[in-house]
Amino acid sequence: MDIHDLLQRVAQGRLSVEDAARELRFAPFTASGEGVCLDGHRGLRTGVPEVVFGSGKSEAQLERAVQGLADQGASVLVTKLSPGQGEALHALFPEGKVHPQAGLFTLGADLSLTPPWPEQGEALVLSAGASDLPVALEAYATAQYFGLTAGLVSDVGVAGLHRLLPHLQACDQARVLIVVAGMEGALPSVVAGLTDKPVIAVPTSVGYGVSFQGVTALLGMLSSCAPGVAVVNIDNGFGAAAMARKLCHLKP
Amino acid sequence: MDIHDLLQRVAQGRLSVEDAARELRFAPFTASGEGVCLDGHRGLRTGVPEVVFGSGKSEAQLERAVQGLADQGASVLVTKLSPGQGEALHALFPEGKVHPQAGLFTLGADLSLTPPWPEQGEALVLSAGASDLPVALEAYATAQYFGLTAGLVSDVGVAGLHRLLPHLQACDQARVLIVVAGMEGALPSVVAGLTDKPVIAVPTSVGYGVSFQGVTALLGMLSSCAPGVAVVNIDNGFGAAAMARKLCHLKP
Amino acid sequence: MDIHDLLQRVAQGRLSVEDAARELRFAPFTASGEGVCLDGHRGLRTGVPEVVFGSGKSEAQLERAVQGLADQGASVLVTKLSPGQGEALHALFPEGKVHPQAGLFTLGADLSLTPPWPEQGEALVLSAGASDLPVALEAYATAQYFGLTAGLVSDVGVAGLHRLLPHLQACDQARVLIVVAGMEGALPSVVAGLTDKPVIAVPTSVGYGVSFQGVTALLGMLSSCAPGVAVVNIDNGFGAAAMARKLCHLKP
Amino acid sequence: MDIHDLLQRVAQGRLSVEDAARELRFAPFTASGEGVCLDGHRGLRTGVPEVVFGSGKSEAQLERAVQGLADQGASVLVTKLSPGQGEALHALFPEGKVHPQAGLFTLGADLSLTPPWPEQGEALVLSAGASDLPVALEAYATAQYFGLTAGLVSDVGVAGLHRLLPHLQACDQARVLIVVAGMEGALPSVVAGLTDKPVIAVPTSVGYGVSFQGVTALLGMLSSCAPGVAVVNIDNGFGAAAMARKLCHLKP
Amino acid sequence: MDIHDLLQRVAQGRLSVEDAARELRFAPFTASGEGVCLDGHRGLRTGVPEVVFGSGKSEAQLERAVQGLADQGASVLVTKLSPGQGEALHALFPEGKVHPQAGLFTLGADLSLTPPWPEQGEALVLSAGASDLPVALEAYATAQYFGLTAGLVSDVGVAGLHRLLPHLQACDQARVLIVVAGMEGALPSVVAGLTDKPVIAVPTSVGYGVSFQGVTALLGMLSSCAPGVAVVNIDNGFGAAAMARKLCHLKP
Amino acid sequence: MDIHDLLQRVAQGRLSVEDAARELRFAPFTASGEGVCLDGHRGLRTGVPEVVFGSGKSEAQLERAVQGLADQGASVLVTKLSPGQGEALHALFPEGKVHPQAGLFTLGADLSLTPPWPEQGEALVLSAGASDLPVALEAYATAQYFGLTAGLVSDVGVAGLHRLLPHLQACDQARVLIVVAGMEGALPSVVAGLTDKPVIAVPTSVGYGVSFQGVTALLGMLSSCAPGVAVVNIDNGFGAAAMARKLCHLKP
Amino acid sequence: MDIHDLLQRVAQGRLSVEDAARELRFAPFTASGEGVCLDGHRGLRTGVPEVVFGSGKSEAQLERAVQGLADQGASVLVTKLSPGQGEALHALFPEGKVHPQAGLFTLGADLSLTPPWPEQGEALVLSAGASDLPVALEAYATAQYFGLTAGLVSDVGVAGLHRLLPHLQACDQARVLIVVAGMEGALPSVVAGLTDKPVIAVPTSVGYGVSFQGVTALLGMLSSCAPGVAVVNIDNGFGAAAMARKLCHLKP
Amino acid sequence: MDIHDLLQRVAQGRLSVEDAARELRFAPFTASGEGVCLDGHRGLRTGVPEVVFGSGKSEAQLERAVQGLADQGASVLVTKLSPGQGEALHALFPEGKVHPQAGLFTLGADLSLTPPWPEQGEALVLSAGASDLPVALEAYATAQYFGLTAGLVSDVGVAGLHRLLPHLQACDQARVLIVVAGMEGALPSVVAGLTDKPVIAVPTSVGYGVSFQGVTALLGMLSSCAPGVAVVNIDNGFGAAAMARKLCHLKP
Repeated sequence: MDIHDLLQRVAQGRLSVEDAARELRFAPFTASGEGVCLDGHRGLRTGVPEVVFGSGKSEAQLERAVQGLADQGASVLVTKLSPGQGEALHALFPEGKVHPQAGLFTLGADLSLTPPWPEQGEALVLSAGASDLPVALEAYATAQYFGLTAGLVSDVGVAGLHRLLPHLQACDQARVLIVVAGMEGALPSVVAGLTDKPVIAVPTSVGYGVSFQGVTALLGMLSSCAPGVAVVNIDNGFGAAAMARKLCHLKP
Repeated sequence: MDIHDLLQRVAQGRLSVEDAARELRFAPFTASGEGVCLDGHRGLRTGVPEVVFGSGKSEAQLERAVQGLADQGASVLVTKLSPGQGEALHALFPEGKVHPQAGLFTLGADLSLTPPWPEQGEALVLSAGASDLPVALEAYATAQYFGLTAGLVSDVGVAGLHRLLPHLQACDQARVLIVVAGMEGALPSVVAGLTDKPVIAVPTSVGYGVSFQGVTALLGMLSSCAPGVAVVNIDNGFGAAAMARKLCHLKP
Repeated sequence: MDIHDLLQRVAQGRLSVEDAARELRFAPFTASGEGVCLDGHRGLRTGVPEVVFGSGKSEAQLERAVQGLADQGASVLVTKLSPGQGEALHALFPEGKVHPQAGLFTLGADLSLTPPWPEQGEALVLSAGASDLPVALEAYATAQYFGLTAGLVSDVGVAGLHRLLPHLQACDQARVLIVVAGMEGALPSVVAGLTDKPVIAVPTSVGYGVSFQGVTALLGMLSSCAPGVAVVNIDNGFGAAAMARKLCHLKP
Repeated sequence: MDIHDLLQRVAQGRLSVEDAARELRFAPFTASGEGVCLDGHRGLRTGVPEVVFGSGKSEAQLERAVQGLADQGASVLVTKLSPGQGEALHALFPEGKVHPQAGLFTLGADLSLTPPWPEQGEALVLSAGASDLPVALEAYATAQYFGLTAGLVSDVGVAGLHRLLPHLQACDQARVLIVVAGMEGALPSVVAGLTDKPVIAVPTSVGYGVSFQGVTALLGMLSSCAPGVAVVNIDNGFGAAAMARKLCHLKP
Repeated sequence: MDIHDLLQRVAQGRLSVEDAARELRFAPFTASGEGVCLDGHRGLRTGVPEVVFGSGKSEAQLERAVQGLADQGASVLVTKLSPGQGEALHALFPEGKVHPQAGLFTLGADLSLTPPWPEQGEALVLSAGASDLPVALEAYATAQYFGLTAGLVSDVGVAGLHRLLPHLQACDQARVLIVVAGMEGALPSVVAGLTDKPVIAVPTSVGYGVSFQGVTALLGMLSSCAPGVAVVNIDNGFGAAAMARKLCHLKP
Repeated sequence: MDIHDLLQRVAQGRLSVEDAARELRFAPFTASGEGVCLDGHRGLRTGVPEVVFGSGKSEAQLERAVQGLADQGASVLVTKLSPGQGEALHALFPEGKVHPQAGLFTLGADLSLTPPWPEQGEALVLSAGASDLPVALEAYATAQYFGLTAGLVSDVGVAGLHRLLPHLQACDQARVLIVVAGMEGALPSVVAGLTDKPVIAVPTSVGYGVSFQGVTALLGMLSSCAPGVAVVNIDNGFGAAAMARKLCHLKP
Repeated sequence: MDIHDLLQRVAQGRLSVEDAARELRFAPFTASGEGVCLDGHRGLRTGVPEVVFGSGKSEAQLERAVQGLADQGASVLVTKLSPGQGEALHALFPEGKVHPQAGLFTLGADLSLTPPWPEQGEALVLSAGASDLPVALEAYATAQYFGLTAGLVSDVGVAGLHRLLPHLQACDQARVLIVVAGMEGALPSVVAGLTDKPVIAVPTSVGYGVSFQGVTALLGMLSSCAPGVAVVNIDNGFGAAAMARKLCHLKP
Repeated sequence: MDIHDLLQRVAQGRLSVEDAARELRFAPFTASGEGVCLDGHRGLRTGVPEVVFGSGKSEAQLERAVQGLADQGASVLVTKLSPGQGEALHALFPEGKVHPQAGLFTLGADLSLTPPWPEQGEALVLSAGASDLPVALEAYATAQYFGLTAGLVSDVGVAGLHRLLPHLQACDQARVLIVVAGMEGALPSVVAGLTDKPVIAVPTSVGYGVSFQGVTALLGMLSSCAPGVAVVNIDNGFGAAAMARKLCHLKP
């Protein structure tokens, strides 16, 4: 909010009071109808462009949000879609692409989610179990969407730690590690004890009984005795990628 | 409860009805007063002799319980003692021994708790952090009390897994592993993925914030993706040793 | 990880540096595609061969996992299958067998789950209520899969304790007891107070209201005042059998 | 609230409107000052006279409450007293009696709390562990205060069920059983499965770790699979005795 | 368990050792197959005949249980049935009756559940809201099944307390009150403050948000500041009626 | 309850005792059958007319409640309807109107829910996210039903606070603000820090993972460090509007 | 934030760009040292002047905050003080006044907290039990501090509802009711069902066992089936008074 | 673990098998006695040198840990010290420095904790309330210990957001923001919506009632709808600084 510059222009008569007030208030967002209000300047302000959170939105709301962002010339990413929502979006925007396993829809963005995945990248996603793959894919795809080179390594959980060892070199070459795990969620602790890269831990709702839909993994990650771990919400692959994007754009 | 044999003696007239009824009812326990009822035959029935749970008992109750067991000729172990309770017991039974760090009192049992501890044994106790030591000592002492050879290795948590590696051979030579950990409680999973010994996991109340006095460690251990782990109550070093005792006395 | 022996061979020139590094890293597991990474050596390392956790896996992942293990010559056990997953696996591997009540699929393993069940065995499963049967069957089947002789006794809960008494002799002849209970989960405490066998307690999600999908049974079992009880995750019949397998293979 | 009779007297001119209104509003309680408002007619209305809940009250409030009830000619019972509150009350009312172990104060009531206790009565209190004694004593004393003959049996928990058997006859002769237990709280289920008497279950805060200050015992009792069990708040010996009083005064 | 009498017969040679042992063990229950073990003597022992808990049982198990009890000449009550289970039972036993709103099935018992219900009885059920009706009906029907005269008053919650007042006389004439409430569960407290009858409180899972499927109502009832309230599990109308049956059969 | 006036009429012989008693008891409510008891005088007594809570009611109960209120000449509002319940009501009362997105049914009330909504009013509803719209609409519609002028502003959450600024003037012109938010629920704190209007905060069940169906938003709102915020149940748009109605009718 | 006006002055050259920027940023608060940053304009902005939250602040921080506000000429209120903090403040500011029972300190404000309290007022505080008095006093004092006439009625809980009736007229004359209750927290529901005034419900941490330090009262209040209740944090008498202040200043 | 290089040296005969094995196992850590095992190479491996977690350690253990690290030539930082532990360490190492407000002890490290603090730096700590200062200081000091330039801004919570605005420029100049907040924990969401820097959120245990010792702040931060926020354990200022250290050392 370059308030100094704007005030300067007002003082110099180059901007009227009315226009200044309007700019301060209305510029950075657009009401699209159906209760949707797009924040088109979010990318400038926060470094992370607006992404549509699909869960719980009606079909009409999804259409308005996607169309609104497309109208601004942005590429579009929608997350946490149910299969029905995904199909509805595809019917509305046939040029877009649905990724059902990851619950994503993209328009005007060219993301590759099909295996085999590269096992290295600026942002390297490590997934503890094969059942954690949907969340890992959400992180992997979102990181790409944000312009990072991304890698994905699956099924390297602590019950067989030797499966992790061949990937330590790729960990060293990454800039940030996104470690995805359900059940007891021990993998981020172990990884953070072996490398000097920041670890963004993503608990998943995989498991049953006292896994409590990811709460146990979350608490374990937060209680980690290995320093250099920070945590996002359960199943929040998107949030981990957004954090990774901010980290990788740090100036030295 | 050899009911067959007892009925046989009744049928043969070698035991009167009154005596049989009394034996069936009153023999195996003794009321000691102050609401304490000792179960002297528990060792025969369950393989684990009665141990006094100290927490919350009044001084008078502790005295009755210790005296009652000593009168039966048993050696005595009291657990979960506060410092005040420990001192009170020592004043009452000066020939007994208090172990404040582990919250234990023993009478007529010769246990060694002072470091350095042997790093191998039938029952090998592995402790994730130095702060977990009180619980690890409770397990280590109780295992000795139950007649097992016991070992104790401290401060080998997952933040520096290489500290665990030199002890893998001792793990292989043990019959059962008692793995004690607080915080995220990941050590039992990792150990169970590296050895073929049964792991009895003991969560501890070490940590702060979302460690929730051991609940997070407990949930992590129960959610473990490594098979061959079973769990006891938070801080229950005694219970782990009792389970170890039952395991080690399994007939081949 | 016989690192000593491997280093010896490197020192003697019998193993090249490259081969040693590869062996250390790649030998014990195989990437099967679709994010599945099989741990074929787990049986050697931990005494418990790899079993596939079905819950949450896609059909493609299940196929890769089963095929991958079968290719290694192993018999296969898949647990926690939904009815749909079970049918899909049967369509893919018609020579395998689905056990819908227990949520299991087996290939190349000859397990018997149909009643009447033997009421004794090395590993004796006691089930508190008839509604707990699916979990009890998972434990019973997995114990067989791991090579134990197994027995199963159903509907002997604490509301009618006399139903338990005829089975105490079989408890004495077993090596380990797996006690399955929902609701208040009191059966393991009672059993552990009557026998000298180790009790592996399995809480189940049977019940309603404050049974909280098994949490109450779990907490009751962990709080047990009877020593010699250790607990696994809610509904984790598999985990109890894996622990039983490790116990029964203890050397005297 | 004999509103019919009162209206009759108003209609007949035997009671003025003002007096009727006053009677309807002010009669049954007395403001004693310090924010204390005594409900002297509660005994008539509910069958259970007003008892003072001591916890959290200031010394001045306790004095007003005790004096107020004594002024109405009632005998007084105060529950849940801290040691300091008990001493303060004794200094104020030297003719009263403090029972520190049970946290009670009585004035004008002749209760016996010292062992040995009778092991039978209309209301029979069964206590699972010796550490549960304070709560059991609160129930035992309150039942006496309410005019019931009461008995108390201690330390008969499920880890040694045979200790319970000699008392089953006394259970049959009681009118109601108050079963007090901490830890896993299994005793009420077992007792309710053995007798035809109503069981009022009192969970206690005895235990540690996942006993969660009595929550586990409470949940277990509520989840009981044995019918004929109803539960009161944790450590609420008073409430169990109040329920017992109402039960014992049921007309046939 | 008239052990004295049985021993007497053994001592007199009127009963052989083998027969005595068999009687002690096998008499009071019958294995019906499919893991179902019926406790036919429960009525004698506990005053409450065995009722089948339907939830989670397979169709085969339900059939065995119902047939087994019918074979013993008992009338049958099955609770907590899903619609599908109810239809299945009706197909198997067309002479039985399904009560879908209450989730019940009866065979050989003549219960009336259709409105209008009598508004008085030995056991009077008070229901706070119209949405609590299914649980209230379960209590009302079970009380009839146990031989009590029962009444049912619906929709008298604390948001309009005056609706309760016309029923206070019926409360005074009842022997026990079963008070059913969801949401904040305040009705039992209010009722217990107005009458001298014992109140059995049944929380229901009615509500949304922080009603937490009945947990809030349960906690409120347990925290009640009105004495003479005891509580059963959420939605446990059956348990309340079982408790009522035990209370009403108390001898004066 | 103008008891004084009523007594006066009894004293003056203008009202018989019988009529007085009946009036005191039966007047203000009507039993409609199916366990539904309508409180027609609630509007007089509490300022908020009776609204039907639809969740969990059977079709027959809904019909009785709507018909009963309509028979009293009242306009009708039913909340928390499932789609099926809504359709059933519409079939029964074709002149009524169903609002599926908000889960409402109205009869004899003319509410406007279709966008664009006015962005100011006595009661101004602010909604943090587009997914919170159903709850915001429930509050917006109920406020209209209660006779308030209402406004609705959507999608102004804290991730882009500048979207809120253009609406601060409308906040100043409102009499009460209803702030609806899910996820972390921070919007009410921020709004209460910017205006001098009372804020009624409504947490919603929007979100996933640790949003815990609205619990996190609820706790955040209750913990708010900004004074002048009070909170209603999760998703309780109706309750917020009822509170707003009471506030707006405060006399100066 | 009259941004329009400020911009006008900039456009007219009556305010320099630098001054405008500074005013926008620095005016409304003052850093007092020790990490304390006072918000002197809060009263203007939100209608509620800044009150110091005492809990957890160091003595130095309290001194800075009180001195800073006094330097601005404001009267001062500090809440949630421990006894030690209260004494420290009194030593520093002998002209101030400490109210230990309510945990308050005031400087330059003349509040009366000693009984007897007036039983009517714009803001009428109703307290369910005598033990809830500290929280009721916090609300009562804060309401006075905010310039409202306040009343306080104590010990009118639902176990003896008739104690509430004489105060219904005062309820009708109040503008807002603050209802304080611990344990099951039922009083706000009952009051809201009897009057047409808005009810601000304050749960207290009074109680034991499942009262859970006020959580049960909180949940009960939020689940209230009586409309017109909104809730603040546990023990938050201050917050209720702040809400009352905002309500009472609503323009008609 | 440069296993390749080490194997090379073994293959070339430059390293004996025994030495290689010893190096692989024993080099990187040292047993110091009292159960303490120091991980001196942690800095090399993870980029974060070993810091001593003081909570729960005995005086003897603290001495061993500090002495052991000092013997390796490292500067020492001990966290989460109680006042007693701090004094004990100071008595043992008079050349060290205790920071009681932050619960820290340092030896051989020159940290400045006294105000006024610089309000900018690579790692900028923002603290919502003055009561959050101890945790903010822990983060601020640890960041310095790890070699970062650090700043600290206190008391800029969301109840007065304008206090935050003057610091937005410093936010833009920082490389990472550590945002510390208790109560509802909304500050990180708001900050992340205003800047493009990664936000490490630290919930604190400040608050009362439903703040639940920091759990509410934690859940709010994890549920944040603003992307670019990751969270550490409650009160874990150390962990946030460790994450900051890893981020700031990212190579461009």
